Amino acid sequence: MSQDAAGDATTEGDLRNTGMSLKHDREWDYELERIIDEIEEKDAKKVGLQFPEGLKRRGPAVADDLRELAPDDVTFMLSGQPCYGACDLDTFLMRRTDVFVHFGHSPMKNSEKIIYVPLFSNVDVFPMMEDALEELPEDDVGLVTTAQHMNLFPEMKEWLQEKGYEVHTRKGDDRLTNEGQVLGCNYASADIDADQVLYVGGGKFHPLGLAMEHPDKKVVIADPVNNVVTVADTEKFMKQRYGAVHRAMDAEKWGVIFCTKIGQGRWEMAEKIVEENDNAYLITMDEVTPDRLRNFDMDAFVNTGCPRITTDDGPQFHKPMLTPGEYEIAVGHEPLDSLEFDTFHGTW
Amino acid sequence: MSQDAAGDATTEGDLRNTGMSLKHDREWDYELERIIDEIEEKDAKKVGLQFPEGLKRRGPAVADDLRELAPDDVTFMLSGQPCYGACDLDTFLMRRTDVFVHFGHSPMKNSEKIIYVPLFSNVDVFPMMEDALEELPEDDVGLVTTAQHMNLFPEMKEWLQEKGYEVHTRKGDDRLTNEGQVLGCNYASADIDADQVLYVGGGKFHPLGLAMEHPDKKVVIADPVNNVVTVADTEKFMKQRYGAVHRAMDAEKWGVIFCTKIGQGRWEMAEKIVEENDNAYLITMDEVTPDRLRNFDMDAFVNTGCPRITTDDGPQFHKPMLTPGEYEIAVGHEPLDSLEFDTFHGTW
Repeated sequence: MSQDAAGDATTEGDLRNTGMSLKHDREWDYELERIIDEIEEKDAKKVGLQFPEGLKRRGPAVADDLRELAPDDVTFMLSGQPCYGACDLDTFLMRRTDVFVHFGHSPMKNSEKIIYVPLFSNVDVFPMMEDALEELPEDDVGLVTTAQHMNLFPEMKEWLQEKGYEVHTRKGDDRLTNEGQVLGCNYASADIDADQVLYVGGGKFHPLGLAMEHPDKKVVIADPVNNVVTVADTEKFMKQRYGAVHRAMDAEKWGVIFCTKIGQGRWEMAEKIVEENDNAYLITMDEVTPDRLRNFDMDAFVNTGCPRITTDDGPQFHKPMLTPGEYEIAVGHEPLDSLEFDTFHGTW
Repeated sequence: MSQDAAGDATTEGDLRNTGMSLKHDREWDYELERIIDEIEEKDAKKVGLQFPEGLKRRGPAVADDLRELAPDDVTFMLSGQPCYGACDLDTFLMRRTDVFVHFGHSPMKNSEKIIYVPLFSNVDVFPMMEDALEELPEDDVGLVTTAQHMNLFPEMKEWLQEKGYEVHTRKGDDRLTNEGQVLGCNYASADIDADQVLYVGGGKFHPLGLAMEHPDKKVVIADPVNNVVTVADTEKFMKQRYGAVHRAMDAEKWGVIFCTKIGQGRWEMAEKIVEENDNAYLITMDEVTPDRLRNFDMDAFVNTGCPRITTDDGPQFHKPMLTPGEYEIAVGHEPLDSLEFDTFHGTW
């Protein structure tokens, strides 16, 4: 079991279910010429290719196309590591190849060796934006989207302005590459002066995070991939969070997870918890999965790594798993009403 | 899913099921004094502890004992990575700690920083050896065991000699640390001049590998952990292997798995397959699990990593998974009767 195995789980907002019943087939530009240029310039012999889970099946065809274009002595390798986001950069393969191509996510780590190929969706976003308007009655609106639709962001903004809105956008912080971009763990681009935010993109994973981080705002989802407009509803998630905190209040032995992936290493936070609690034990791992934790005899876990593992996959773990902020509530250091969404800032 | 998730699988010989219904509780000597000496000598501040899956639940108690004995400013970290054998050494945690303790397996990689603590079972092996005698009618017998019982190996040998046997033992090759030791992937210690071999140890994982590697020998299992004597029967496994080879004969697209764990990197082998087959694609990963391969659109896989993933977990993958030797049969380079067990030699 692992985050991978949850394919048949029905968690709302689950990234892995996104697109299971796509209304539109998407096409992608893999920027083969740019990759070949880099291979030739670096005289590369080993080239690594990493695709997000949903596009792994396209990998062999992309490798075929590259093999036709590249010199004969170049070996292409596909990363088989799980890949759901920018933090999942396969650093092992990266270190062992001359050129390493990461498809579909914004940069989390920069290196001479890495080529980031953004995969922009060719889906028309405006019909769903049109449908979303009736859920956006106020004059001011925030606008955010994901890496896949960033290429259309200026057009989306203009379109909303033409409809008469005052459109609020910002770049957010250092962890975000582009204006208006959101990540599963960072919604600083929605720290804007509007009570309603329009999210344009596929699935509910990002807008649910956004709504948890900004509980005071109405988050309207224009999903051009599944052809649907909805309003983010965090009630089920929040009930789960409070439930997990309550169940963890009786815990004696705590496992404190330190995730070794780039972009997730909150060492000081993990160390502080262990220093202050004699019944807390540091556990290090890359993929944080139910099976990896099952053999540890703990009463509860606090995850200093990806907050989405905690909030979205939490119910699949055999013991309560909390974010660091929720841990502080469970052990009585903070009041229950201090509960808020756990976000990451900066890059590592 | 992953090798971890197979806890409820009923694969015979499955390492993970070993000891699920122990007849004897085992006690272990974690050699705390040796670890503390090393911490003090190196003035270590960060200490990593890695336990095999079956002992992970003891980790917190061992950490507690060490915390009492060590200077106050030492932080102990438990590896949460899956650990089934010597190849699973957590190199990430090892690199980031001053002292790294790996419990329960023989060394696969040596480093100033690593302390290997063998965990010798305190179970009495001789009652089951006594019971095994009636399955060993010949005068010559080979003797092998696992790391857990190595401390008793000279006594076992003497005991058999006293019973009148000519006992054949050997160290095997460089991959093996001790005379008479077997690993899941290496049975060179059974390359001896006897038609019957006595395996002393828990579970069927090792003796089944031994019997597959040496199909001409009778492998008798004296299992002092589960209090049982049996004769290794590879028929089910061999049928599965032939079945997988036959199903893979129609495959067009092959995924060639290169495992990135220490001790498993057969790069030349993987590269050769890809060079000779235009429809073969290199896929790199650390944990080789059904879920990680499901998203790759391949007809069959050939695994150059751990042979036990292929033979023991094979049926759990969505497409046939073969060893490199079986691949050569499936693509018609070798005859069907060349099928043999895949073993690893040397260390990396």
